[in-house]
Amino acid sequence: MTWVYDFEEGNRDQKALLGGKGANLAEMTRLGLPVPPGFTVTTDACKHYFHTGEFPADLMAEVTEHAHLLEERLGRRFGDQAAPLLVSVRSGAPISMPGMMDTILDLGLNDETVEGLATETGDRRFALDSYRRFIQMFATTARDIPGGGFERRLATARDDAGVESDSDLDVTALEAIVADFRALYEKEAGEPFPRDPADQLRVAIEAVFRSWNGRPAREYRSLNSISDELGTAVNVQTMVFGNMGSDSGTGVAFTRDPNTGENEPLIDFLPNAQGEDVVAGIRKTEDGAAFAAAFPAQHAQLVETMALLDEHERDACDLEFTIEKGTLYLLQVRRAKRTALAAVRIAQELVHEGRISEDEALMRVTPEQLDLLLHPRFDPDVDHDAIAHGVAASPGAASGVALFDTDEAATRGKAGEKIILVREMTSPEDLHGMAVSQGILTAQGGNLSHAAIVAKSMGLPAVCGADIEIDEGGRSFHVGGVVVNDGDVISIDGTLGEVSLGEVPVIVPEGGEQFGELLEWADARARLGVRANADLGEDCRRAREFGATGVGLCRTEHMFLGERLPLLRRYIMAADAAEASACLDEIRAQQRTDFVDILEAMDGLPVTIRLLDPPLHEFLPPLADLLVREATGRATAEESADLPIVRGLHEENPMLGFRGCRLGIGHPDLYRMQVAAIADAVADRVAAGGNPHAEIMIPLVANDSELAFLRRDAEAAWHEVMAAAGLDLAPTIGTMIEVPRAALLADTIAVDAEFFSFGTNDLTQMTWAFSRDDAEAHFLGDYLEQGILPFNPFETIDVAGVGQLVEMAVEKGRQARPDISLGICGEHGGDSASIRFFEQVGLDYVSCSPFRVPAARLAAAQAAMQEGENARDED
Amino acid sequence: MTWVYDFEEGNRDQKALLGGKGANLAEMTRLGLPVPPGFTVTTDACKHYFHTGEFPADLMAEVTEHAHLLEERLGRRFGDQAAPLLVSVRSGAPISMPGMMDTILDLGLNDETVEGLATETGDRRFALDSYRRFIQMFATTARDIPGGGFERRLATARDDAGVESDSDLDVTALEAIVADFRALYEKEAGEPFPRDPADQLRVAIEAVFRSWNGRPAREYRSLNSISDELGTAVNVQTMVFGNMGSDSGTGVAFTRDPNTGENEPLIDFLPNAQGEDVVAGIRKTEDGAAFAAAFPAQHAQLVETMALLDEHERDACDLEFTIEKGTLYLLQVRRAKRTALAAVRIAQELVHEGRISEDEALMRVTPEQLDLLLHPRFDPDVDHDAIAHGVAASPGAASGVALFDTDEAATRGKAGEKIILVREMTSPEDLHGMAVSQGILTAQGGNLSHAAIVAKSMGLPAVCGADIEIDEGGRSFHVGGVVVNDGDVISIDGTLGEVSLGEVPVIVPEGGEQFGELLEWADARARLGVRANADLGEDCRRAREFGATGVGLCRTEHMFLGERLPLLRRYIMAADAAEASACLDEIRAQQRTDFVDILEAMDGLPVTIRLLDPPLHEFLPPLADLLVREATGRATAEESADLPIVRGLHEENPMLGFRGCRLGIGHPDLYRMQVAAIADAVADRVAAGGNPHAEIMIPLVANDSELAFLRRDAEAAWHEVMAAAGLDLAPTIGTMIEVPRAALLADTIAVDAEFFSFGTNDLTQMTWAFSRDDAEAHFLGDYLEQGILPFNPFETIDVAGVGQLVEMAVEKGRQARPDISLGICGEHGGDSASIRFFEQVGLDYVSCSPFRVPAARLAAAQAAMQEGENARDED
Repeated sequence: MTWVYDFEEGNRDQKALLGGKGANLAEMTRLGLPVPPGFTVTTDACKHYFHTGEFPADLMAEVTEHAHLLEERLGRRFGDQAAPLLVSVRSGAPISMPGMMDTILDLGLNDETVEGLATETGDRRFALDSYRRFIQMFATTARDIPGGGFERRLATARDDAGVESDSDLDVTALEAIVADFRALYEKEAGEPFPRDPADQLRVAIEAVFRSWNGRPAREYRSLNSISDELGTAVNVQTMVFGNMGSDSGTGVAFTRDPNTGENEPLIDFLPNAQGEDVVAGIRKTEDGAAFAAAFPAQHAQLVETMALLDEHERDACDLEFTIEKGTLYLLQVRRAKRTALAAVRIAQELVHEGRISEDEALMRVTPEQLDLLLHPRFDPDVDHDAIAHGVAASPGAASGVALFDTDEAATRGKAGEKIILVREMTSPEDLHGMAVSQGILTAQGGNLSHAAIVAKSMGLPAVCGADIEIDEGGRSFHVGGVVVNDGDVISIDGTLGEVSLGEVPVIVPEGGEQFGELLEWADARARLGVRANADLGEDCRRAREFGATGVGLCRTEHMFLGERLPLLRRYIMAADAAEASACLDEIRAQQRTDFVDILEAMDGLPVTIRLLDPPLHEFLPPLADLLVREATGRATAEESADLPIVRGLHEENPMLGFRGCRLGIGHPDLYRMQVAAIADAVADRVAAGGNPHAEIMIPLVANDSELAFLRRDAEAAWHEVMAAAGLDLAPTIGTMIEVPRAALLADTIAVDAEFFSFGTNDLTQMTWAFSRDDAEAHFLGDYLEQGILPFNPFETIDVAGVGQLVEMAVEKGRQARPDISLGICGEHGGDSASIRFFEQVGLDYVSCSPFRVPAARLAAAQAAMQEGENARDED
Repeated sequence: MTWVYDFEEGNRDQKALLGGKGANLAEMTRLGLPVPPGFTVTTDACKHYFHTGEFPADLMAEVTEHAHLLEERLGRRFGDQAAPLLVSVRSGAPISMPGMMDTILDLGLNDETVEGLATETGDRRFALDSYRRFIQMFATTARDIPGGGFERRLATARDDAGVESDSDLDVTALEAIVADFRALYEKEAGEPFPRDPADQLRVAIEAVFRSWNGRPAREYRSLNSISDELGTAVNVQTMVFGNMGSDSGTGVAFTRDPNTGENEPLIDFLPNAQGEDVVAGIRKTEDGAAFAAAFPAQHAQLVETMALLDEHERDACDLEFTIEKGTLYLLQVRRAKRTALAAVRIAQELVHEGRISEDEALMRVTPEQLDLLLHPRFDPDVDHDAIAHGVAASPGAASGVALFDTDEAATRGKAGEKIILVREMTSPEDLHGMAVSQGILTAQGGNLSHAAIVAKSMGLPAVCGADIEIDEGGRSFHVGGVVVNDGDVISIDGTLGEVSLGEVPVIVPEGGEQFGELLEWADARARLGVRANADLGEDCRRAREFGATGVGLCRTEHMFLGERLPLLRRYIMAADAAEASACLDEIRAQQRTDFVDILEAMDGLPVTIRLLDPPLHEFLPPLADLLVREATGRATAEESADLPIVRGLHEENPMLGFRGCRLGIGHPDLYRMQVAAIADAVADRVAAGGNPHAEIMIPLVANDSELAFLRRDAEAAWHEVMAAAGLDLAPTIGTMIEVPRAALLADTIAVDAEFFSFGTNDLTQMTWAFSRDDAEAHFLGDYLEQGILPFNPFETIDVAGVGQLVEMAVEKGRQARPDISLGICGEHGGDSASIRFFEQVGLDYVSCSPFRVPAARLAAAQAAMQEGENARDED
């Protein structure tokens, strides 16, 4: 059995034996790339070590043999003062396990070789600093000596020298530190620091093996279901130095521009420097042209290498390289990190170049990247100071006048002023102000607060639950020492969760047009339709531009707000049936106009309209406010008159109260009016030559009898309108599945439902017994932090629990009515991981906010492709 | 094929052919009982009618033949003026369908025969009244003529005569009405009223057939899953008259005393009267002795008949009888309605007499009857006027001083005064006052309001949601014109839902001792254990007397109320960890005492203790109250200081908020303290030589990680106490299954749960998305009234929905942990229909309020027997 392989002996298919890193180093070596030479100790050796408690008998002999090969190849020797061989030692498991063990660099340094390094680099400070780092790393990593003692000694040395930073310590100080560190090592390890590089290497290899069974590694494997039996390989690689004189240097390179995606290599170079110097950013780097001028041969070699890598990886790569005394080495090659814009361009161009398939291109861009392309952000090239931070609740960035009063915001916003609405938190009463603002800032609430959800649906940036304190009187806020008054200009970035004073310039990426091709490929592969949640004609037109295949959720309650609110209130407070009926007639006329606008915008596409859902008291002033006004004599006569009604409608747990279909049954005139208004609009559109597809959706059904009752009522109202219009159109009527019981009994409910739309927000709330707002305010953050929940079930669907109900309802619904249409209109409709699940259970469509539609189209395509792959795997 | 059977030809096994009523009449005739003779038209004739649209060819010939037989047997003839034959016509389906078709009485009356009846009875008024009733019944029942026209004519006649009641109309008026009715019939039916009794009979038989397909009958069958194919039979029976002179009379008789159950016949008799006269109660009836004196032969025959029936039915029976000119007829025989006390005594005595088995005896008493025996009631023999009515929310009756302030009630109640606590509605803040009151009266809330549930658990009578209005200031209420002030004596009966002024005497049935034998038989057959929900030692002792096999739910939150509330508030408001910890130390000492008391009362039996469940804000003053006090300057300094904390803890939907295990995770010190207090108490009891079995229950778990986290914590707290006490006892830890997700994922949760207790109250709330209080306040009543729900899912478990989750959790729980203990501690634990379901799914025990334990023991036995029967049927 062979325990050690030279990088020249392996290839990338040997991950099980050589580990991921070892196999990649071997592959690059095989391609002829200038990788610093080295060798890999196999995973078999590791396994042997764990089964027997000892190294394989031949292991160290083989290691020594390979070390000799390195010495010969490089003309350097372990322990040689003039030309010392220094190596790095790294673990490398068959499956990547980040953070399992730290790297040990510069192994081979000792009191003699450090002087050789000093001479060769002409930088004794660098050599000593490398040496003290090596001792520290070796001690903490290979010997498990706590790092605190080393750090404390460094701090003392800084104090003694009166400097702030380690890099300001001079040679004398570093000499003392090296001596100190060796002494500390000896005390803690109970033996002198090993002088002989061969001893250092043996200890380091054993340490890597042991790290496989260390606690972090075991926990990582357990969390990620990785077998304990795989073992880790150990990579021993020659160190190279870019600071060995004017014929040396270091740099990074990209095979394509990571910002724009342009197919043009990009090189950053620092002559006579180590990699740390590039990262530290203290010296200004040179560009590709300067590098080519100074190192023409190496530049040519690098460019050729980059082309080869780009070709071989079939993707943009980034490289770290070092030139040691004229020789080019590649220290690291990875697929390049890139901006969202670059990701799209690179993927599309690779297809045009014939290098990857459309399928592969679709997998190279994440839905989250597409999403980013649709929103403005603070310009990263312009400095700004954040005065406050909060939850990045809705992406985008904007500036405007901070206003604390919703009505004022509504007035001034309509007049064209740019407003940032600042509230403790928002409620449906704030909608008219939100709609004309540039952005929302709240002191309370998180990602699922009313402000966040509404802002997302309106495509407005929002920062929620920011660390600001709104002052008594509610006309200013303070944070730290800064006070922001009503009328001051502020900026918010809802992608970053930042608040700044004054106007911060924003950039608006021009992604929109650039991903059209990608989305065409996506649509050709997606099985799920992507509809939008849109309540107004304007939203619908935007959704259609973004490629929505219909409206999955049109919430009629938003149509009752703002100017129309007094009318609905009059209905609720109506003294008698005649007055109530007169109000409803007026509302019907208004809703008819709304629906005509929506159906026109979505002509030819389905529009699912949900009948009124929230409890009526949401349209009235809060009880506590009225009580206070009444008690303090500030109530108007009207408010005093309203009080008993508001009190009568008050509920302990309104989410589980008198709302949804229960309203429709308790106030049949209300739902009949809404159905009639929809029918009116359909008739109008037909008369205008349009092709309207309205679907009537009944919310919060828990029992089939509720739906049957309301369906009868709705059909009667519909047919009355159609008969008057001389039309013979049947209504399409369906229901939300958002109450656990509806999912459990979906077969009985499907009898009267032509479609189901899963309301996964409420379904999650009820299945978990989590009130979204209360949970976020009081305990959900704590749950996520403590790892009691691995994810927020309001962001990504809880497949194990809520998903079980969805799956059950899909099965039972289709069983009772094979042609039933199935969709989902909760927040999860725009979440990629959730879309994957909805693909798996076979829904017909997802519905999400208009701005999220492009991302969802991509996610739907990816989900379909992954499902196809799974299906093939199972065959 | 024979279409008509004489009563002498059939028997009780021919229900399919003769219908239930026909078969019973035949059976009684077969036994030689003096049933008025008659015949039955078969269900086959009805089926033929529906298949062909016509009577079978021979049907009317057979009817005529059987009518002739009657004429011969009785010496009366259809249409004979001197001795007219009159009959009743009734439907009778194979399965009883009450109210399907009304009875037609006195068929055979016409302008001639009415005079015969007048002569024979010597009561022309009676004859005319019978005639006008017959016309009206025939018209509405056989001809579907609306009854309003007849009623309006009667009303006009009453007005003309200046009388209040029909019975005050004289002969002249009745003659006019008969003429009027006949004219109305002719107008509506388009033909004269049929004179010939044979024609009348044909039409009546056809009407009964048609009624089988009438809407009420079809709906009843659909609701009760009865086949449309069965058809109905028609019973034609001779009318007999008890008002034909001094040799006639009418009465009712019981084979055993229906009030006490004593095995002694009971007879009520009215000479020369019809059955209506007995029912109307105008004339005073004679008892058995007087009857025997006047009618010795008939009395002897009746007593003999009663003995025969009691023997034949193997149960107490009641009889309606009539003596027509010296001949005794039985008009109706039924199993006797009886009081709860009588039901128990009769069942037990029938076993002693060797007439029925213990199994049968157990089926003869309902759990609801047993329940009634435990509660006092208004003495029915004492007149009282109810001033108000409400929901019969908790059984029992009591009198006392009406007090509106909880604290005052608490003080005066403790001092020994009898109090009825009157509140708009109650909350946990009222518990200390409720505990020392005799009864509770509220203006709001229903059967599942806080007041109702707590009153039931305390065994206190309660009338909830009464039609009273509590006046401004809350120190009096009014209803109608009556005002009840603070301090007035009132009485309430929570079994009837009545409120009376002054002290109404109550009776306390002495059932307790009398059903001991029955419950012994029950326990021998029950598989389900019956535990009690009990929070205090006193409740536990009572539960044990009632035969509880343990405590299924001990709610620790009740221990924090009253005098102890300030301590818990101090903990919630604590400025720092030290203060919080000091509070908890004090609470721990208190809880230790509580638990010792409980474990002593339940020595040797399991006691399931639930850790704190309600949100902390329930222990603080309501936010709205504080806001009002603050705004009006009435807040104390302490209240002003509390306001921000109360505001911070405020929740939109507290039921789905920061409570249950979420509290335990958010405030780990709280649960640790409670576990330590339980462990303290166990150690104390062991030291005292006791045998404590405490079970620690974690509420509101939705995910396994919550339970795992809290289990670790609880085990640590437990073992610390045990180690200090030198004991080596393991804790028993389990969880409520009350969140839908917990049921869906019960297999993962069972890993850390030694027991599940189904919290079907919350599980129902979340599965239906029904907030119990809000639903009852706003729409549940409407749902039940409109038939949208056939039952209240908070009273009887919703087998289709919630039951599905329970069944799933039982299966998954047992799969993951075969020896898991399974119980239920929601309100359904005391409901017979629900107990049947819990038996079916194989729970180990139910738990209910102490007073409900005897009823639940009986229900458990009945469920076990029914399950055994089902199992045999399936074999």
